[in-house]
Amino acid sequence: MKNIYLDNAATTPIDEQVMDLMIKVMRDCYGNPSSTHSSGQEAKALIEEVRRKIAAYLRVQPGEIIFTSCGTESNNLIIKSCVEHLGVERIITSPMEHKCVAESVRDMKNRKGIEAVYIRPNSKGDITLDQVEQALKSSDRKTLVTLMHANNEIGNIYDISSIGKLCRRYGAYFHSDTVQTIGHLDVDFSKTEIDFASCSAHKFHGPKGVGFAFVRKTSKLKCMISGGGQERDLRSGTENVPGIVGLGKALEISLENKDDYQSHTQEIKDYAITRLKEEIIGIKFNGWTSKEKSLYTLLSILLPFKDPMIGFKLDMKGIAVSQGSACSSGATKPSAVMLMLLDEEEMNNSTPLRVSFSHRTKKKDIDAFVEALVSVQPI
Amino acid sequence: MKNIYLDNAATTPIDEQVMDLMIKVMRDCYGNPSSTHSSGQEAKALIEEVRRKIAAYLRVQPGEIIFTSCGTESNNLIIKSCVEHLGVERIITSPMEHKCVAESVRDMKNRKGIEAVYIRPNSKGDITLDQVEQALKSSDRKTLVTLMHANNEIGNIYDISSIGKLCRRYGAYFHSDTVQTIGHLDVDFSKTEIDFASCSAHKFHGPKGVGFAFVRKTSKLKCMISGGGQERDLRSGTENVPGIVGLGKALEISLENKDDYQSHTQEIKDYAITRLKEEIIGIKFNGWTSKEKSLYTLLSILLPFKDPMIGFKLDMKGIAVSQGSACSSGATKPSAVMLMLLDEEEMNNSTPLRVSFSHRTKKKDIDAFVEALVSVQPI
Repeated sequence: MKNIYLDNAATTPIDEQVMDLMIKVMRDCYGNPSSTHSSGQEAKALIEEVRRKIAAYLRVQPGEIIFTSCGTESNNLIIKSCVEHLGVERIITSPMEHKCVAESVRDMKNRKGIEAVYIRPNSKGDITLDQVEQALKSSDRKTLVTLMHANNEIGNIYDISSIGKLCRRYGAYFHSDTVQTIGHLDVDFSKTEIDFASCSAHKFHGPKGVGFAFVRKTSKLKCMISGGGQERDLRSGTENVPGIVGLGKALEISLENKDDYQSHTQEIKDYAITRLKEEIIGIKFNGWTSKEKSLYTLLSILLPFKDPMIGFKLDMKGIAVSQGSACSSGATKPSAVMLMLLDEEEMNNSTPLRVSFSHRTKKKDIDAFVEALVSVQPI
Repeated sequence: MKNIYLDNAATTPIDEQVMDLMIKVMRDCYGNPSSTHSSGQEAKALIEEVRRKIAAYLRVQPGEIIFTSCGTESNNLIIKSCVEHLGVERIITSPMEHKCVAESVRDMKNRKGIEAVYIRPNSKGDITLDQVEQALKSSDRKTLVTLMHANNEIGNIYDISSIGKLCRRYGAYFHSDTVQTIGHLDVDFSKTEIDFASCSAHKFHGPKGVGFAFVRKTSKLKCMISGGGQERDLRSGTENVPGIVGLGKALEISLENKDDYQSHTQEIKDYAITRLKEEIIGIKFNGWTSKEKSLYTLLSILLPFKDPMIGFKLDMKGIAVSQGSACSSGATKPSAVMLMLLDEEEMNNSTPLRVSFSHRTKKKDIDAFVEALVSVQPI
């Protein structure tokens, strides 16, 4: 059976070089970074080197990078600590956010009584700067704006630079879930008025179980997980040294090869669009598809027929795609994002499907996917 | 230079078999366990197998094992969620607890206004059942008792079975930090009235960055990290699949070899005690040293001279030990535990030192350690 992986937005295969380095670290540098002896300090030096590397990429200070176990933890830490420790009483967000952001906001609303303001996207999944500004100026309460850099289900890229400027103007904190963009796009926080961001290594061929939060030093955020005071007291617990080193290596490889990876993957995406349009009459795409406005790694399809079992049928043919984001894909009901974007007619007569690519994806993978899709569509 | 590692209570070297399996999983099973396709479901099956294995060891239900990123996260989740979600207004604990427990309690006291009751240990580091009972009966407020299974600095083992019975009798929740005992001792929760416990894989030759919380199903605990609803909605975030598999393998190896590992390590500890008594006049030990009352992996020494640089001097001779727990070892002031146990005269004229062993430790390592210690002691 074929084994074609087109679900890179859910997770990516680990790079072999990353694995090799992780093994080396697991074998040779097993010390606890909090230990003062050489074995501990050697491990500590490794994670500080990765911290500096990430800081250089994002153009921030090394002390503003806080290692965590994943993007979800990073987003929880930021949103919940803003409410618990920074006096945030109002959160401006949108229904397009990842579940970990949406659920953190909901939790703060339910348990801490904060006001949640949802900016309604248009049918393309976009929100306007004017909508953000209207929301910002509608209240004097201490506000956090949390809006993602790129959407994990449809791939739209949002203008976080302009959103950041608005937040600064109205004295609001700005957090952006950058899980789908770090390692894939240029992300320069020296030019963006942003306070908080998040990253997950397994989205760019790094290991699962490690990520980081970018926390602007001036924000005075406090920890959610307390204890030994690791990570500048913002995240206690023995550091996942091999994971952090793996994250660093994966990021390094991604950045060194960014132009090649990007142009190859963009070509794959464009090829998929062309082939799908040729073969599936009436096919549509959710959100934007252009190079400028959407992730090169992701394509959200709207199939012109209703088939909730489509993912399963493609899987039977050895093709891994997603019917939503991975974190919601176990669910049988449509995702919050699709509920926003699709009208009733579309909900009843079409099927969303997310295909996501990497530099490893080949045109023949796309051919096999399109062929499989044609074979399962109703006549 | 020698390279003698006697800091296994801080962290342990990973077993080669564990690494081999982790690499295999990283290479072959990279799917996201939340994805519904085969690649995801294969990863999901791997983590469920580990969950069953752990549950069988602890004699609990698989659904009561919640994978986390470490022991610190597990302890934070349990303590903070008890206050946030289960209505706990009072926590009974002791100054012997690990910093992640102590700081979680302190955080709940400072921010949520809970009452913290500290049971004072005697100079051996022990607390009595009568003390626990007096504390339990002194108030009707909803109470959580958090007392560790074995101490990470002095090695004392506490009678969690009897403490659990008292908690049940007085209607209190019972949490025990079992980070130093899981993988080393028989831990049978079918015989212990316990609601919550914690585990960290890197304490028994597993990987860093992964652990679990035992959460009794009837407790109705809720998550601290929200999002996609992984881990029965008790811990969102993409699962660290290779880490979890590594944890499972490390636990399996530890249990299969427990008798051998235990008798070897106990022999090493007894040998260390004998050699130290022979070579260092006036040496004492903190807490208990007997097989029945203390961890076979750990020995807490009280050197009969004051030297805050002792750890550094031993490190220069290639010997890694700890001057406290790893999580506090960066600090120059004495640990909370030592402040409890030592009198003023001892604080001024002696130096605590923790040496901790594994099945890999050899008698010649102990000889080298004792020799180095003799060479650095003041004449």
